[in-house]
Amino acid sequence: MRDLLTDLKKRMDISERDLERLISAFLSTSDFWEAIAVSRLPFNMVVEISKHLYERGIIFFEDEEQVVLTDKGKRLFDYGVTPLKGHLCPSCEGKGIDLRDWKELLKVYEETKEGRPEPLLEYDQGYLTAKSVIERIAFADGKGDIRGRKVIVLGDDDLLSIALGLSGLPEGITVLEVDERLVEFIERTGKKRGLKIEVRKHDLRYPLPNDLLGEFDTFFTDPVETLEGLGVFIARGIASLKGVGSAGYFGLTTAEASFRKWRDIEKMLVDKFGVVITDILSDFSIYENWDYLLESIRRDLPPLNRKPNVLWYKSSLFRIELVEGYRSFNEEGKGEIYIDQESMAWIRREKN
Amino acid sequence: MRDLLTDLKKRMDISERDLERLISAFLSTSDFWEAIAVSRLPFNMVVEISKHLYERGIIFFEDEEQVVLTDKGKRLFDYGVTPLKGHLCPSCEGKGIDLRDWKELLKVYEETKEGRPEPLLEYDQGYLTAKSVIERIAFADGKGDIRGRKVIVLGDDDLLSIALGLSGLPEGITVLEVDERLVEFIERTGKKRGLKIEVRKHDLRYPLPNDLLGEFDTFFTDPVETLEGLGVFIARGIASLKGVGSAGYFGLTTAEASFRKWRDIEKMLVDKFGVVITDILSDFSIYENWDYLLESIRRDLPPLNRKPNVLWYKSSLFRIELVEGYRSFNEEGKGEIYIDQESMAWIRREKN
Repeated sequence: MRDLLTDLKKRMDISERDLERLISAFLSTSDFWEAIAVSRLPFNMVVEISKHLYERGIIFFEDEEQVVLTDKGKRLFDYGVTPLKGHLCPSCEGKGIDLRDWKELLKVYEETKEGRPEPLLEYDQGYLTAKSVIERIAFADGKGDIRGRKVIVLGDDDLLSIALGLSGLPEGITVLEVDERLVEFIERTGKKRGLKIEVRKHDLRYPLPNDLLGEFDTFFTDPVETLEGLGVFIARGIASLKGVGSAGYFGLTTAEASFRKWRDIEKMLVDKFGVVITDILSDFSIYENWDYLLESIRRDLPPLNRKPNVLWYKSSLFRIELVEGYRSFNEEGKGEIYIDQESMAWIRREKN
Repeated sequence: MRDLLTDLKKRMDISERDLERLISAFLSTSDFWEAIAVSRLPFNMVVEISKHLYERGIIFFEDEEQVVLTDKGKRLFDYGVTPLKGHLCPSCEGKGIDLRDWKELLKVYEETKEGRPEPLLEYDQGYLTAKSVIERIAFADGKGDIRGRKVIVLGDDDLLSIALGLSGLPEGITVLEVDERLVEFIERTGKKRGLKIEVRKHDLRYPLPNDLLGEFDTFFTDPVETLEGLGVFIARGIASLKGVGSAGYFGLTTAEASFRKWRDIEKMLVDKFGVVITDILSDFSIYENWDYLLESIRRDLPPLNRKPNVLWYKSSLFRIELVEGYRSFNEEGKGEIYIDQESMAWIRREKN
């Protein structure tokens, strides 16, 4: 194990615990994609470690898909690396949310979103499952952030605004969205269903329109996960809020953001923006698989050439709240916001 | 509402949302103690606001216990303040944890802790329910922080170490505890049950003994909630950990720490200590009522003269993890660590 770790450290920035986590994940599931989620390590790191483990005969791939520890691998980690057991409540799958009151909304929302535009790499799109959308709303409602509130959705490939509209709970719903297709879909659906949703085409890299500043109780966003990009999305969210006590929600993955990046994001939240983080719910939200995945990522391991069979891409839900001393900005975002070294699309981008 | 808020702002630092939260809480439950928990506002703030609402004829107290909105109060908040609905999963009460695998441990733990020392104000004691203790362990096990790990418990009025010992999961368990009664109880119980728990009498204000530095995978602590005190407890925890990937768990209430203080605590975690916060679970842990409560708090409202009938005192569970760039300290704590203005015991202390 020591030798292996020493070798790995020459290739990447890795701790003993990172390695153990990946092995634990491989002991928990033979599905490579699912193992990425279980390990809670960045995708690119999982691939790098796995390549090395494969070359050293510690893991192999069955039918090019399933990852299995070799006998050598099993001996190596015999000292106490065990499968991870989540102990998640089977009723709510560990989310803590009672969906019974929301069943009808879930059903109608699922019908309503038929014909939605498919995710585009260009805007880092990829959408939540219907259940995850409703769970996000239910959780936020439990915090008093939905009922009678003015809500803004910053980027809405999830079609959260439609679910909010169908719930009838918020006092107002506004969407800013850069993708013309989504703007049209939400507008059309809103009209058809008689929902009051204001949709504007807007690129979040640019400052918020003046009439939206300080207007909302709650924002939702699923930001790109570069520090730069996330900073811009959160800045827009905070600038849109009324003041102390207003809240924001966003998702953050481990697949494209290491815990080190999480720390830096948290620094930005509490230092630069001066807000409080009130909740972080691990892997609260689950995404549907998206078509462009294989085109956008590295493919240098057998399982990376097959579409995932499971819903493996998850994000943790952050809730932030404005407290005395918070700071609001509304400046233009600069530089690359979509890609950094922890983005799944990093290596492909480098090659182009 | 505007007038009322203007008046309140003369008396205290309060936002419109704070006031709405308390009214929402009063609409959700007539139990004053429970309303404190539901509002997620600091105890002292709830009492201050409530006094004012009582004087202005907006609330009254039925049988000196139940808080009820007067007709005037109802009219005032008619514009859209609604009860808070948590939408918590009934199976796990919103914790997301499946306790079925842990039933036997819970039962044995409950027997084992009989005859435990009662909480003392001197050390800011107050202990978790048995269920909350087991849930904390189950959650941490789901993160890979218990099984085969060396665990340290910093202050153990919860008797978490005994539950950990009974689980048979950790590789080692160490307790630092200032209270002689608890040291003895844990040692005696450990011997009787054949558990390997090392207990040392130690005041956490003083640096960690050298042989415990950098030795553990996981720490648990339920710190005092002054910024100073929490900083000292967390510093000891971090100093005890092995390095990157090691984790710490602690509880933080809203009853004795405003969200503004939470923000300052989070700043300390990510700036001073350079760690990441990976999880914040709202109101994850519930405390048993403790005998010294009424002696330690202000009593200037009718319900503050009756012992609570419900388990109202809760804390949110934080998980932190060491990431590259974290910083470890092991210096002596200075000044008052037990009491600040948000402590429930603040006013009593001031009078003495």
